Amino acid sequence: MNRDRLAAFSDGVLAIIITIMVLELKVPHSAEWSALVEVLPVFLSYTLSFIYIAIYWNNHHHLLHAISRVDGRILWANNNLLFWLSLVPFATAWAGENHFARQPSILFGFALLMPAIAYTFLVMAIQHNEGSEKTLARAIGRDIKGKISLALYIAGIIAGFFQPAFAYAFYVAVALIWLIPDPRIERLIANQEREITPE
Amino acid sequence: MNRDRLAAFSDGVLAIIITIMVLELKVPHSAEWSALVEVLPVFLSYTLSFIYIAIYWNNHHHLLHAISRVDGRILWANNNLLFWLSLVPFATAWAGENHFARQPSILFGFALLMPAIAYTFLVMAIQHNEGSEKTLARAIGRDIKGKISLALYIAGIIAGFFQPAFAYAFYVAVALIWLIPDPRIERLIANQEREITPE
Amino acid sequence: MNRDRLAAFSDGVLAIIITIMVLELKVPHSAEWSALVEVLPVFLSYTLSFIYIAIYWNNHHHLLHAISRVDGRILWANNNLLFWLSLVPFATAWAGENHFARQPSILFGFALLMPAIAYTFLVMAIQHNEGSEKTLARAIGRDIKGKISLALYIAGIIAGFFQPAFAYAFYVAVALIWLIPDPRIERLIANQEREITPE
Amino acid sequence: MNRDRLAAFSDGVLAIIITIMVLELKVPHSAEWSALVEVLPVFLSYTLSFIYIAIYWNNHHHLLHAISRVDGRILWANNNLLFWLSLVPFATAWAGENHFARQPSILFGFALLMPAIAYTFLVMAIQHNEGSEKTLARAIGRDIKGKISLALYIAGIIAGFFQPAFAYAFYVAVALIWLIPDPRIERLIANQEREITPE
Repeated sequence: MNRDRLAAFSDGVLAIIITIMVLELKVPHSAEWSALVEVLPVFLSYTLSFIYIAIYWNNHHHLLHAISRVDGRILWANNNLLFWLSLVPFATAWAGENHFARQPSILFGFALLMPAIAYTFLVMAIQHNEGSEKTLARAIGRDIKGKISLALYIAGIIAGFFQPAFAYAFYVAVALIWLIPDPRIERLIANQEREITPE
Repeated sequence: MNRDRLAAFSDGVLAIIITIMVLELKVPHSAEWSALVEVLPVFLSYTLSFIYIAIYWNNHHHLLHAISRVDGRILWANNNLLFWLSLVPFATAWAGENHFARQPSILFGFALLMPAIAYTFLVMAIQHNEGSEKTLARAIGRDIKGKISLALYIAGIIAGFFQPAFAYAFYVAVALIWLIPDPRIERLIANQEREITPE
Repeated sequence: MNRDRLAAFSDGVLAIIITIMVLELKVPHSAEWSALVEVLPVFLSYTLSFIYIAIYWNNHHHLLHAISRVDGRILWANNNLLFWLSLVPFATAWAGENHFARQPSILFGFALLMPAIAYTFLVMAIQHNEGSEKTLARAIGRDIKGKISLALYIAGIIAGFFQPAFAYAFYVAVALIWLIPDPRIERLIANQEREITPE
Repeated sequence: MNRDRLAAFSDGVLAIIITIMVLELKVPHSAEWSALVEVLPVFLSYTLSFIYIAIYWNNHHHLLHAISRVDGRILWANNNLLFWLSLVPFATAWAGENHFARQPSILFGFALLMPAIAYTFLVMAIQHNEGSEKTLARAIGRDIKGKISLALYIAGIIAGFFQPAFAYAFYVAVALIWLIPDPRIERLIANQEREITPE
């Protein structure tokens, strides 16, 4: 019961975050195509952020599905995750409005890294509460992708200090490893999961 | 269970999209009736878009009702639909603020065409997952109207290059075929559905 | 099932309408108390509108509770209600920002009258679908207050042409008859309900 | 059933309040770090308000969990709470944008005090309806922290007239007593609860 309320509240916040981002797509006053071209960078960053939030919704959904009870630690780890996710629209808009300049590209990476770390803390809070049950272990196992993501975000942030385009290449890479169901990666992860959670 | 979460999340996003559109109805500073007349085009485009989103909510609701399980393909087809629907407010506002000029009338058609295509993909993803069961077939059968809509949107986009008013005539036509329960059209569609899905 | 989805979607839209209205409460740039005084009219109109939406949510909730099935007519009558309610924030902001000038006071009445009419249509759509069952009759009986409200809104709109302050007096009166549980009115309504629905 | 609808509606409103606050974090036009430093005060006040709303959501959740039926008094006490919480983003933004000047620091305290009082009224409305049952008593017992919070908010408001920084120290203190699970405080509260609700 408690878990469903937590899930419903999180779903609500995620649904709002994913939707209000589009408000940053300021309606141009001119009716020319050129006016539309000007909002293209904001559109691109919106698209990227939409995908990230959707991935979080998907993973969060599976993670909560695996737990049976919620304690204060999980509750606040979840609120912490929602807090950092709520800042993604800001970083997205800053990156988009400044046509992917250096500083915004670094902040964008930071804005993606923080929820990833918060998600890791949420996983740890759940592990602390649940022990190592089987359904949970399966959900946690998925988190190997999460650790790769952390590394890629950090690489992107560092790259951003030199060349913003490289930073975004790293960020896009994170989205891709979650979106594209590469059988080899899936198998590799499945193997590692098996090593971690021998049944 | 999974399906209900998907439905609840989609409902949340649709409820927000349909409501934030009204934020584009900028409050005039003057207290004169003339100030209200100026926001009339935005009001008209808001009305039209409200009807579209409501139709999508209605159809989406029936479609999800017909399925029993959700896989990754359906999940991302659904996210893709929500993404394109989230851009309808932007196109609506651009059309309304520029008093239905040429370029915005074309983009408006594009903004309506993309969710229609995304909806078709969602239907295909569900068909791939479910096979051809009876309740599903009934929901899919409804999609004949969807194909007519696709054609009307494309016709509207082409018309927009010549005369914006014609474009909106096509777009309004789509809304009407979904709203007006014409018995002849209903019977025609019912017949076609029967041919397609012989029980 | 259908009914619960309709209720959930309506709840979502109402929750958003009631909350986005506060976005019209523009944050003043100055840190002086005088800056706060300037937003007072907007705050007052926000308060009034918050109460209206809360009353609608409450009544809508009881109304939907009384029905057992949803058809297309009810669905669109409900969408129609949500559409008009979604315009309340706009009228609220226009009234508040123009310090309750004449034209906004009339539009505000119109913006409250239209959902009241839409609610009456929704009640009729439900009556058409359900016939005259007992639980429904009880919910509909409440609508006598609704008819008084309609008359008060119209009186307020007419008054607005002469003196805005009188218009708001009528609008506030509507809120009061719904908020204050006057035993005499309650008894009167209860009697009328009994006459309408002899058990 | 009624209770779940009330909880769901409240969750929706709280999810929106917590998320729209971030819209006040205006995206800077410049791509420099200095531009980010300028939004830092708004970010800090956003963080503080996010924590408050999250604490309210948590407590509200436990409170509603403890009740079995909802009457008109509870409904409107709850709407009153949501109303005051909906004003927190405004006060947050005013405080943040004016870099924690005197007047905004006082209003911020007022904006936090009012929901705290409204929450107390909600607790009283529930007590009036439910009598003193055991699960309820446990939820109410928690409200001792609430009374300490009321005192701290008032102290903060008074401090704000002299020195804004002191005001925020009091406000932060409230957040801390809810966030930090100090065993001594927990034991003290547990003892007082036991005295209040002898089983």
